[in-house]
Amino acid sequence: MNTIGKILTLTTFGESHGPAMGGVLDGMPAGVDIDLDELQCFVDRRRTGQTTGSSSRSEQDRVEVLSGIWQGKTLGTPIGFLVRNTDARSADYEEIARCFRPNHADYTWQAKYGVRDPRGGGRASARETVARVVAGGIAIQALEHLGITVQATVCRCGGAEPGDSAAVLERVMADGDTLGGIIACAVHGVPAGLGEPLFGKLHAQLAAAMMSIPSVHGFEYGDGFDMADRRGSEVLDLFEKREDGTIGTVTNHSGGIQGGISNGQEITMRIAFKPVPTLMRPVPSIDSEGNPVTLQPRGRHDACVLQRALPIVEAMAALVILDHYLIKKTNVL
Amino acid sequence: MNTIGKILTLTTFGESHGPAMGGVLDGMPAGVDIDLDELQCFVDRRRTGQTTGSSSRSEQDRVEVLSGIWQGKTLGTPIGFLVRNTDARSADYEEIARCFRPNHADYTWQAKYGVRDPRGGGRASARETVARVVAGGIAIQALEHLGITVQATVCRCGGAEPGDSAAVLERVMADGDTLGGIIACAVHGVPAGLGEPLFGKLHAQLAAAMMSIPSVHGFEYGDGFDMADRRGSEVLDLFEKREDGTIGTVTNHSGGIQGGISNGQEITMRIAFKPVPTLMRPVPSIDSEGNPVTLQPRGRHDACVLQRALPIVEAMAALVILDHYLIKKTNVL
Amino acid sequence: MNTIGKILTLTTFGESHGPAMGGVLDGMPAGVDIDLDELQCFVDRRRTGQTTGSSSRSEQDRVEVLSGIWQGKTLGTPIGFLVRNTDARSADYEEIARCFRPNHADYTWQAKYGVRDPRGGGRASARETVARVVAGGIAIQALEHLGITVQATVCRCGGAEPGDSAAVLERVMADGDTLGGIIACAVHGVPAGLGEPLFGKLHAQLAAAMMSIPSVHGFEYGDGFDMADRRGSEVLDLFEKREDGTIGTVTNHSGGIQGGISNGQEITMRIAFKPVPTLMRPVPSIDSEGNPVTLQPRGRHDACVLQRALPIVEAMAALVILDHYLIKKTNVL
Amino acid sequence: MNTIGKILTLTTFGESHGPAMGGVLDGMPAGVDIDLDELQCFVDRRRTGQTTGSSSRSEQDRVEVLSGIWQGKTLGTPIGFLVRNTDARSADYEEIARCFRPNHADYTWQAKYGVRDPRGGGRASARETVARVVAGGIAIQALEHLGITVQATVCRCGGAEPGDSAAVLERVMADGDTLGGIIACAVHGVPAGLGEPLFGKLHAQLAAAMMSIPSVHGFEYGDGFDMADRRGSEVLDLFEKREDGTIGTVTNHSGGIQGGISNGQEITMRIAFKPVPTLMRPVPSIDSEGNPVTLQPRGRHDACVLQRALPIVEAMAALVILDHYLIKKTNVL
Repeated sequence: MNTIGKILTLTTFGESHGPAMGGVLDGMPAGVDIDLDELQCFVDRRRTGQTTGSSSRSEQDRVEVLSGIWQGKTLGTPIGFLVRNTDARSADYEEIARCFRPNHADYTWQAKYGVRDPRGGGRASARETVARVVAGGIAIQALEHLGITVQATVCRCGGAEPGDSAAVLERVMADGDTLGGIIACAVHGVPAGLGEPLFGKLHAQLAAAMMSIPSVHGFEYGDGFDMADRRGSEVLDLFEKREDGTIGTVTNHSGGIQGGISNGQEITMRIAFKPVPTLMRPVPSIDSEGNPVTLQPRGRHDACVLQRALPIVEAMAALVILDHYLIKKTNVL
Repeated sequence: MNTIGKILTLTTFGESHGPAMGGVLDGMPAGVDIDLDELQCFVDRRRTGQTTGSSSRSEQDRVEVLSGIWQGKTLGTPIGFLVRNTDARSADYEEIARCFRPNHADYTWQAKYGVRDPRGGGRASARETVARVVAGGIAIQALEHLGITVQATVCRCGGAEPGDSAAVLERVMADGDTLGGIIACAVHGVPAGLGEPLFGKLHAQLAAAMMSIPSVHGFEYGDGFDMADRRGSEVLDLFEKREDGTIGTVTNHSGGIQGGISNGQEITMRIAFKPVPTLMRPVPSIDSEGNPVTLQPRGRHDACVLQRALPIVEAMAALVILDHYLIKKTNVL
Repeated sequence: MNTIGKILTLTTFGESHGPAMGGVLDGMPAGVDIDLDELQCFVDRRRTGQTTGSSSRSEQDRVEVLSGIWQGKTLGTPIGFLVRNTDARSADYEEIARCFRPNHADYTWQAKYGVRDPRGGGRASARETVARVVAGGIAIQALEHLGITVQATVCRCGGAEPGDSAAVLERVMADGDTLGGIIACAVHGVPAGLGEPLFGKLHAQLAAAMMSIPSVHGFEYGDGFDMADRRGSEVLDLFEKREDGTIGTVTNHSGGIQGGISNGQEITMRIAFKPVPTLMRPVPSIDSEGNPVTLQPRGRHDACVLQRALPIVEAMAALVILDHYLIKKTNVL
Repeated sequence: MNTIGKILTLTTFGESHGPAMGGVLDGMPAGVDIDLDELQCFVDRRRTGQTTGSSSRSEQDRVEVLSGIWQGKTLGTPIGFLVRNTDARSADYEEIARCFRPNHADYTWQAKYGVRDPRGGGRASARETVARVVAGGIAIQALEHLGITVQATVCRCGGAEPGDSAAVLERVMADGDTLGGIIACAVHGVPAGLGEPLFGKLHAQLAAAMMSIPSVHGFEYGDGFDMADRRGSEVLDLFEKREDGTIGTVTNHSGGIQGGISNGQEITMRIAFKPVPTLMRPVPSIDSEGNPVTLQPRGRHDACVLQRALPIVEAMAALVILDHYLIKKTNVL
């Protein structure tokens, strides 16, 4: 289940300190112009070492496209791609091999598989998201050809407004502690009619995609959890016929989706990230025999991932929207 | 995309005022004892007309199992089942055929398919959930044989605590208005190791399942959105070796899931429902040509769906957990 | 895995002597005219008791469409349907419960599931094909709207030409024995471009569909196995530009498919059926403990299934072709 | 649809003259010993330039495993792998860019996608099979741990017995012509109970897998097409209780599969390959405008692919069998 999507499918692979991360994006329509330099720029947005609070691990993250794009156009064939892991320092991670870090996946992967690659968290590392960003960057370019754009922004960081986040982050880092936050994502230009009954509702697929990003603990669309406290009359998005003859809604409490299908309004959603689980201070834990240990801070870790997560959120949104754009083509004979 | 699940798949069908709702539950292991009377009792929990604020539509909702269960045991073959629609009053719904109700799926289905069954909302009616409850009720019995139990409770109703919900509902109904709320769901007894990397994370699949329930606008697990405002040190679920030799965590901010895989603690989640979109008072809208209309209250509708939604939430949780229980069996040779 | 197809999916259920056979056809485009009387006529073609050599079991096989079609048009929603089992005489089959019939699935189902419904062969009965024919009959009507037609014919029966089959069958039945044969199937009007790389080749999907029909032991398309004995120069389908400006091929050794994708020529294939495994004479076998038994002829069985299999073959071909017709829509943006 | 399998899935990518062929094998159980040198030896069996009649294109075909195997054991994570294309001479293929070769996929890919990579046939080249062999080689090692072995042999070449094939091939090559043939494949040690109803029958999945190999035109299992000419009494595989207490069959006309499920006997099948479509002599054809052209022999091509196809057939068989071995684990709770 390292695959997502129905028509447009992304399958990814790679362990954090193995030779490479990569993936296969299958089902991309043929004849779509893709600018690989623009793709690299998009992928660079999630790189480390660029903002305060991010890990000092320095990966070049050069995207190698191995198939499916030729002479600047998609071929309709699967797009295989790689990003090499060049700055892996596995010595840093020997401790993980025999201990379980709290709020990490060490214990659960051991329980599941009976074996794990402890180097850098193996496949459970957030480094896997580089493959999502490569594939999503391609989907974003395809959507742009259709007039559809995706934008994610940090709307809450460490319990503070985005404007105060630098100060908050400074204090937290001084304590060797970490932050989480909330990212808002909006998709403009989605035509009405995308999304499938019953289990393929557009927001259900967006939720699954966003919840699959490491550290995400919550998802809502439109007014989300707030809607649960409102009366029905307060959140009705009344219809209006607009001057250009199209039908729209006066308000958008519903986040651009009704009954799981886009209604032509802006699609809005919010995604909650837990604070980074690796602290830069000693943490009590246990080893695989259950003996108490104290984990010393080491390795290179982010204190806050929100800025780096923006292209990841945009990537996942784009993959879902493009997939449903293609599915909709099959709704008529 | 009327199918959910990977090994254990549920495919459903049925329009609200067609002859029947139904489904096929495929992938159920063979030899599992299923008590059909108990199943009927479970399905009865979502019936209308049983609690204040629910629709007066009176369906018997008798479950007809057509295959896959014989002499009280599953055969390993697909379980086909039906629930007849016996109390459909389609005359009530002629207006919907030419108008779009706000916060309903009338407009989006029309945009998607160019045709729709307006009787009772057609397939977009929440009546489709009866098929989920039948299938989920079977999954719940299978999980019980494994010592796994699922329980949903209303934790917020119309902005109030559950204890105050009757008073709140009374006032809202007097105004011809409606309510939403939040349901909490807990799964006990799940062994460590369920859930798949990368896109098959247990909470991502739970999110997709819950978000596919009509009216759901938000999903969170563990501390959810609150976690976004906490520091890393505040939400670490420290490990402990217990007296019985097992490894657990002292707290459960993570909601029983780490890295998308169950850790053996209780799985906790919360699901936000928007207020019912059909008010019992006149509502301004437009018809399919965009002309203004006033929709008069008619038909039979719930003012609050939370009580009826409890078995639906439990059903969806059970289907996801049992699916992943089966998938886990394939993790070793 | 009671589901076939990617966009257009068919999920079936039902045991031979349970209450009903049925299925769900999901992914049918919306707005397609379906004539239910014509559908019933198509389903009637596979009924028993109509040709020499077929079982005397008398089923009415009335198709009950439960959803997805309204006012003679598809809604785009899943088409749920039923065919009741009305002439089940389970008493005939008690012997099967403790014995294994050779060339039947009794032993293998027991090995797989540890439990089985022995009545009429349970789910392993060829009666399951009624659900295929219902779904395929709907697909055939949709294809006709596109100018695509499917026709299956018996091209070999019991080692003889079709013209001699009545005489051959008479002799065989006098001996209490049974026959197999070969069915040819042609699909006219398929546009070029249907079929997917790499594992979704059109002929690979046709093969999987045909081989899933009970009793089928071989599949070939175009010149098939004969092609293996030819030189390359003997089977080249040279291109020609036709008077109407289209491009075609002079011959059609390739059966209308090149590289897994339709080339606009007639699609041709042949399907080999083994002889019916149930003889009308005593057969030695064993019971579940391995003790020798002699199975006496009983129940109602076909001596030759070829005529009844024609609509089944057509149904499976139609489902595959329509599925790929829909998939092709997603090949461009 | 560049993915095959249900639990064990293989997704491949790569154009013949692009940077690399590759794939992702997902769903492999964790903790399985894999010998990468042995894997390389298996992959080498399909390399060119090793037998009479094979292309002189000289690829090293070094397998690069990028993830999923660590310290000689599978991790349960997806196994990403690459094989670089090092000997691509694209200048040879400029003619293909504007002409359609008969019995190749040039025309059909153009019709499907409106664009294609003509270099070496692009994705339609048989070079894609290298990715199958890598993945299949891993599956074969896993099966060996279970006592299951797969063996393919040439049973007919150019209409002659394998013993005469060298002489036949020599004559054919002197004419600039090509050959096809038949490969038999046997799988030993498969336990009873593998294979799924209804559409997931073991032989249906084997058929789909084999028919997806380039040039394959026919598939049969057990006695296959011959069975269609036999009487039922001639092909009954009678049961016997063996000295070790197990139940087997006296004959194996059914090829080890009954009702789509393995019965513990050897699984046997035969696969028909058409003759290689590229002749080493001038061939008349048309260009994309429909003008007549004469294609001159160029490039490097096999006159007979049977020897090289053996590991491909074994690979596909192994992938299907291992997938169903894993699926069977989910048949009980």
